[in-house]
Amino acid sequence: MKSKNRLKEDLMETSRIGRNPPKVIKRYDQLDPERGIIRPTGSDANKKIRDFTVKRMEAAGLNVAVDEIGNIFGKRDGFKTSKGTVMCGSHLDSVVNGGMFDGPLGVFGAIEAVRRMNDEGIKNERPIEVVVFTGEEGSAFKQTLLGSSVLTGKTELEQALSMKNEQGITLDEALRNIGYKGVFKRSLDDVDYMVELHIEQGPILYREGLSIGIVENITGIVWIMATILGEENHAGTTPMKMRKDALVAASEIVSFINKRANEMVEELSSCTVGTVGRLNVFPNGTNAVPGKVEMGIDIRDVKQENMEILRTQTLEMIKGLEKKFGVETDVLMPVTHSPAPLSLEVADVIEQSARQIGINTKRMNSGAGHDSQNMASKVKTGMIFVPSVRGVSHSPMEWTEWKDVEKGIQVLTRALTNLSKL
Amino acid sequence: MKSKNRLKEDLMETSRIGRNPPKVIKRYDQLDPERGIIRPTGSDANKKIRDFTVKRMEAAGLNVAVDEIGNIFGKRDGFKTSKGTVMCGSHLDSVVNGGMFDGPLGVFGAIEAVRRMNDEGIKNERPIEVVVFTGEEGSAFKQTLLGSSVLTGKTELEQALSMKNEQGITLDEALRNIGYKGVFKRSLDDVDYMVELHIEQGPILYREGLSIGIVENITGIVWIMATILGEENHAGTTPMKMRKDALVAASEIVSFINKRANEMVEELSSCTVGTVGRLNVFPNGTNAVPGKVEMGIDIRDVKQENMEILRTQTLEMIKGLEKKFGVETDVLMPVTHSPAPLSLEVADVIEQSARQIGINTKRMNSGAGHDSQNMASKVKTGMIFVPSVRGVSHSPMEWTEWKDVEKGIQVLTRALTNLSKL
Repeated sequence: MKSKNRLKEDLMETSRIGRNPPKVIKRYDQLDPERGIIRPTGSDANKKIRDFTVKRMEAAGLNVAVDEIGNIFGKRDGFKTSKGTVMCGSHLDSVVNGGMFDGPLGVFGAIEAVRRMNDEGIKNERPIEVVVFTGEEGSAFKQTLLGSSVLTGKTELEQALSMKNEQGITLDEALRNIGYKGVFKRSLDDVDYMVELHIEQGPILYREGLSIGIVENITGIVWIMATILGEENHAGTTPMKMRKDALVAASEIVSFINKRANEMVEELSSCTVGTVGRLNVFPNGTNAVPGKVEMGIDIRDVKQENMEILRTQTLEMIKGLEKKFGVETDVLMPVTHSPAPLSLEVADVIEQSARQIGINTKRMNSGAGHDSQNMASKVKTGMIFVPSVRGVSHSPMEWTEWKDVEKGIQVLTRALTNLSKL
Repeated sequence: MKSKNRLKEDLMETSRIGRNPPKVIKRYDQLDPERGIIRPTGSDANKKIRDFTVKRMEAAGLNVAVDEIGNIFGKRDGFKTSKGTVMCGSHLDSVVNGGMFDGPLGVFGAIEAVRRMNDEGIKNERPIEVVVFTGEEGSAFKQTLLGSSVLTGKTELEQALSMKNEQGITLDEALRNIGYKGVFKRSLDDVDYMVELHIEQGPILYREGLSIGIVENITGIVWIMATILGEENHAGTTPMKMRKDALVAASEIVSFINKRANEMVEELSSCTVGTVGRLNVFPNGTNAVPGKVEMGIDIRDVKQENMEILRTQTLEMIKGLEKKFGVETDVLMPVTHSPAPLSLEVADVIEQSARQIGINTKRMNSGAGHDSQNMASKVKTGMIFVPSVRGVSHSPMEWTEWKDVEKGIQVLTRALTNLSKL
């Protein structure tokens, strides 16, 4: 098979795993907005794509090992044994009803880079290790970035293994069930670099007509889960002055966060985003004054201080609704990730590598979380983005043009080669 | 049985019909917010309460007949046969998970009034006819006020009988199944007055510590079902400037309607109410920019011109969101009822009747719809309200104090007596 088609074939082959009914997708116009990929950690589909991947790794000459949290490693030795390893990879699990590129592109991209180094007889000085992280999406076991959290020591192995999915099965059992509870104990002491190829999942490269983004920072995330308790009443019989309408109060939060995030982008030239993505009204009848609203608020920025500004102002604003509307409010903050700056050294290597093969790049931030943000706390880490058509991801309509996939793999192959020589 | 306890016993006895498991409720503290009454038209529970009611009517000496839409009539002859009938009654069907007073109070109140006239040897000059209307709530067959709409000629009999419930059964079949597809053809040509005793379903009497309200107007209703179509995107990766957030746009509608309705109450001393009671977000994930919002808007006033002001301004405001936020909007108006002024003559009779027995009253409007608004188009119609504890109705927690029930029945009995002599 021509090297240009191998990665495409791998992605097309795995595009059927976890789709119901299974269907191979070759082109954008074959996507069905109702039929995405469901491939949570521990599922049959997760086992199938892991088995397929291990075969491809072995065929590429990699030595495969599985660690105790189910992360898969495929090693190609370097010829200078004193130098630390360059890791490269991503994840194979998916969100519920997701797309075919989020994760697999980075795994099969890393395998394809090794295959091209084989084809071209490139000798890597440092060992190169393809990595598949367990449970990046948090779709089965509810912590995101799980495999990389254990690998980098942010989460205890035992704690992670005892987490349960919605069926009440522990991660330990789930990994045993699919044959991926390994014994390999991987430390990062001998690892110097990490590179992850991924789709952007946003609209920037697509709108600017660029093929390659180089990530400088992964944004931090704060989630605020707010509950507004008003008073449920009949919409016809309750005079305006006697209401405690939870939705009227909640709507001010939606407007406030949107307005403040936009102002911060203007005033601070920041990449701040603030979103109310989830909002549930109770009892939710056209003729009932809403008695309760539950909402999920998402705040992100690459600068911790900007996140703090918007978080603090939002919490103050929510508290202020109690006096203004006579409602009660309650907030939880179940998710807090600090912003993760990636390695500028690795970014420079990626940029030089792209320039060597005549491909334009753009420095940018990642608004989505990735295993690379965990890895960045231990080793020098970089990310390569390729464009998402219309900026769509976490959706059956997720797509990246094959020409951009090819450019991504060319830059990745060159960057791995260059990193291995540092 | 003492007359004071008979109505209470009827309401307690029927408080178990349609409740799962059946449970007789005697006091407020026996109510369970999870276990209300489900008694839609055509259900077994609906048959049971109809059978019970017919027995009570016959025991009170009434001649019972059922018309072709299942309305039940129980007649007590007057001794001056040239005078037109006074009708009095309400409905027996319920909303899903409703309370025990909404409807039955007016039916058993009318029967109890007749029993007291029997006890006291009161001779009515006009015939008095207790009426039970079919399908007031629209909980099985989706048109509200169905029995009175057919009786008053607003809806064709054949059209009503061919309506289907969620199980695909026509109203004609449903009425036959429970034995209430009658043959009586009731016209309103010989009817002069109608009185309905009902719970207020709002907080006004309860907050003011009054037992009796006299209704002057039933508000009109406009429902606007609005859909806002934006662009679903990843909340982390989509810059603020590249968004079309459907919830941000929808929130402005919620705020606008609340603000304008409040302003109209101030400026026009109107009873305008404007509510967004239903709001659904798609895809409704904390990390997703909302792509679509569906909302249900309820506007009511006793003055048509005020409803028109708020409807027109709301529709203009929604249209304006298209330019402001780049979203698409769509509106449907599935429900439009004009305001129904009731008879001031009947209101005066009710007020005088209450005064004769030393009970204070308050003139007010009804923010909820009732069969009386249909009847008012054909005969002189009045309504008597008793307080709803905390203003709660259409809920398992619906309650009216027994002392207020007793005052309601005293005023109703006196008013029927007085009306029959006009």
